[in-house]
Amino acid sequence: MSDDLKKGLEGVLVAESELSVIDGDKGELVYRGYTIEDLAKGASYEEVLYLLWHGQLPDSDELSTFKQAMVDARDVDEDVISTVRQLAEADEDPMAALRTAVSMLSAYDPAPEDAEPTDETVNLETGRRITAKIPTIIAAFTRIRDGEEPVEPREDLDHAANFLYMLNGEEPDDVLADVFDQALVLHADHGLNASTFSAIVTASTLSDVHSAVTSAIGTLKGPLHGGANQDVMEMLKEVDDAEMDPLEWVQTALDEGRRVSGFGHRVYNVKDPRAKILGERSKELGEAAGSLKWYEMSTTIEEYMADEKGLAPNVDFYSASTYYQMGIPIDIYTPIFAMSRASGWIAHVVEYTEENRLIRPRARYTGPEDQTFTGLDER
Amino acid sequence: MSDDLKKGLEGVLVAESELSVIDGDKGELVYRGYTIEDLAKGASYEEVLYLLWHGQLPDSDELSTFKQAMVDARDVDEDVISTVRQLAEADEDPMAALRTAVSMLSAYDPAPEDAEPTDETVNLETGRRITAKIPTIIAAFTRIRDGEEPVEPREDLDHAANFLYMLNGEEPDDVLADVFDQALVLHADHGLNASTFSAIVTASTLSDVHSAVTSAIGTLKGPLHGGANQDVMEMLKEVDDAEMDPLEWVQTALDEGRRVSGFGHRVYNVKDPRAKILGERSKELGEAAGSLKWYEMSTTIEEYMADEKGLAPNVDFYSASTYYQMGIPIDIYTPIFAMSRASGWIAHVVEYTEENRLIRPRARYTGPEDQTFTGLDER
Repeated sequence: MSDDLKKGLEGVLVAESELSVIDGDKGELVYRGYTIEDLAKGASYEEVLYLLWHGQLPDSDELSTFKQAMVDARDVDEDVISTVRQLAEADEDPMAALRTAVSMLSAYDPAPEDAEPTDETVNLETGRRITAKIPTIIAAFTRIRDGEEPVEPREDLDHAANFLYMLNGEEPDDVLADVFDQALVLHADHGLNASTFSAIVTASTLSDVHSAVTSAIGTLKGPLHGGANQDVMEMLKEVDDAEMDPLEWVQTALDEGRRVSGFGHRVYNVKDPRAKILGERSKELGEAAGSLKWYEMSTTIEEYMADEKGLAPNVDFYSASTYYQMGIPIDIYTPIFAMSRASGWIAHVVEYTEENRLIRPRARYTGPEDQTFTGLDER
Repeated sequence: MSDDLKKGLEGVLVAESELSVIDGDKGELVYRGYTIEDLAKGASYEEVLYLLWHGQLPDSDELSTFKQAMVDARDVDEDVISTVRQLAEADEDPMAALRTAVSMLSAYDPAPEDAEPTDETVNLETGRRITAKIPTIIAAFTRIRDGEEPVEPREDLDHAANFLYMLNGEEPDDVLADVFDQALVLHADHGLNASTFSAIVTASTLSDVHSAVTSAIGTLKGPLHGGANQDVMEMLKEVDDAEMDPLEWVQTALDEGRRVSGFGHRVYNVKDPRAKILGERSKELGEAAGSLKWYEMSTTIEEYMADEKGLAPNVDFYSASTYYQMGIPIDIYTPIFAMSRASGWIAHVVEYTEENRLIRPRARYTGPEDQTFTGLDER
């Protein structure tokens, strides 16, 4: 028992994991031994889900069975949709709405009630159903809020393309579907980040997968975690609205002591490899749309921050302009992060509970000692 | 950065706290310097809430203002009640239903949207509203599930008595109200247990109080944490149904390698001080009802476990028979734990975020290295 305070648990090893590893000095991210560059280029989100959950990349038959199971689980019970409708009409925050709706899914989940809480097969199937339904919830919430009716999922579309279809009511073109699929792959896992860790803490009492994912959504919601990509886009729009040169804007912002969103990361000392890949896709989307405005604004800020502050962009910095150019509403960026990261949350929960240990740290007591109690009448 | 694996974070100090301290060797629990014995005897749950949230015991005026604010916040929005109704009709687990309903409360919460996420006053007020509404949710869920209509809260009753009134539809007598109030005091805080820690992890991204409490409920739900008091009661009922001498039953159970619920605790090496107090109340309730059956069964098992296994009972061991003799349905014991512990969750969240640090530990990577990627066609 050490008396060192480990606030933030920085550097503290709480588990062993075969899922992903980050080399913060080299700027490398690897899922089960495969580089994020290889996976982003060559594997679909469904293949990455299979890799994270089942330990290896699927062959064609395995993938086809797996994809069909995902498709079969996309529908969301009418009770949950009616609650989503109430939340949309109450103008609920999209991440809070997702937290409530995912929590509610458990009431309608067909997992056997007598399963052991550590049954890997049962938990992976439950996790697969949750992962399949999250896009349906996000799309329904967004459409109802915007005064439109939800669109039913389409069986012939993959996870990424089907989400864009349910969100917009029309099938995305191949480039959009591909960029979005790649964004999901890039966000699928990232070690023991705060949301993944919260999922493990919840699961460590042998609670259930719905509880773990609900905790993770609530944790991802915070501006120090998932909320950052929205902050980046708000910032880029502010630069645009100010009609200032981006260079001038960032100089002024730093002079005024403001924080520039999308830079620096607890685990990367160099450029986040996901930012490199998404930066290229952001440029591509700009070229296709005939305007490199957002891309060039981003690179100008990136160069200035590197020179002046020695800070490199993280994944949020380029996911922002990528999603914006795809026409996705800004406050849906964090729910999309959740939609992808569900894969990592579930993979870590299943892995951790296999050799479970209740997570219960200590606090150092710094409060008063030996207080003499007096009753209300004498206070 | 240490390479020791701290699975379970046992003994790891992650925060400083002025809220509560446990001496596991002496069997002492103290909230802000006051012993649990003094508080259980002399303070109501509302006074303890005030102590934990505001740093000192209230005087009469402070308590009266505080209690009125709690009373004013008891009503739950009709949308949330309609979701609770759906969950009850879908036969949802009571803790899962509470998790969903508390998550949903945020859509109707009047906290100012532009408040800083670390604003202590705003967060305590939000926490107060959540704490006031949890009993209303639990009582409504239980009644609807049992085919009855929810009962509106009554302004003239305190937190504990009002819950029993909403649950049963009739005002509890003074003894029941007092025992229940004391049970709430005993469960109000307990250092960085798993649910409280999960609330802090969630809040450490500067997410909101509803997210933190929702995480904590999902974490408390697990059988290694809040679920234990239900397990104790199921066990006592099994002893009763078996028509065996409790001594014989516990001997047989241990011989068969079964786990006896309600014994041992990560932080106590001697008898949990809360178990001592609740044991006395359990006896009192038995005497009032004219049967010491449950109490005597419990003490027989306690003595045997102490002699044979050197294990002392924890709080769950005596809360079980206490609640059972009060006529509370067994699967509501853990929601009642949540109803009380909300105080500690909120107090710790507010305290931690005051000097916030994102909680992000590490995992040791034990997976494959340098995998060569092959496309789907070649697998």
